[in-house]
Amino acid sequence: MKTDLELALECVINIYHQYGKLDLLNFNDFKTLLTEQAPTFLGYRNKTHSIFKETDLNKDKELTFEEFTIVLAKVTDDAHRIIHKDDRCTPDKD
Amino acid sequence: MKTDLELALECVINIYHQYGKLDLLNFNDFKTLLTEQAPTFLGYRNKTHSIFKETDLNKDKELTFEEFTIVLAKVTDDAHRIIHKDDRCTPDKD
Repeated sequence: MKTDLELALECVINIYHQYGKLDLLNFNDFKTLLTEQAPTFLGYRNKTHSIFKETDLNKDKELTFEEFTIVLAKVTDDAHRIIHKDDRCTPDKD
Repeated sequence: MKTDLELALECVINIYHQYGKLDLLNFNDFKTLLTEQAPTFLGYRNKTHSIFKETDLNKDKELTFEEFTIVLAKVTDDAHRIIHKDDRCTPDKD
């Protein structure tokens, strides 16, 4: 039986698969995913291009799932700060 | 209305809160969380202590949520590889 964490992460993986092609995200896939799935995270950022560039570690203009987890960590941290009503732009104050 | 990704990440945050104290995880909290919530990830690792040490970036023996997202990225990447039946110990082959 899967744990709650495993089920939640499976959900995240399914979302990635829904937007990617051949298990990769190009810039347009990435932008659509963030716009549709993480509007709150994108809300105060107008930097989808620079987020993509800093996430695409090997600079092949496509994100593997492993690279995508870098953004995922940021989106998750952002959601956590919102729950605690922390300022989302400052370093972590936990 | 929350998106599917936001709901999944909220679920992850709730799990973190369930195991932490004052929004921090000490080593025992961390070990319990991974043992109960990520048994598949831990399955082939016997290194909870070294994972904790490399995640505790500021070496204060507690993990903030921001630090915890580092492990979360690894657990998520691992779950993704299992779905594709990739070898979980080799570099990403996506």
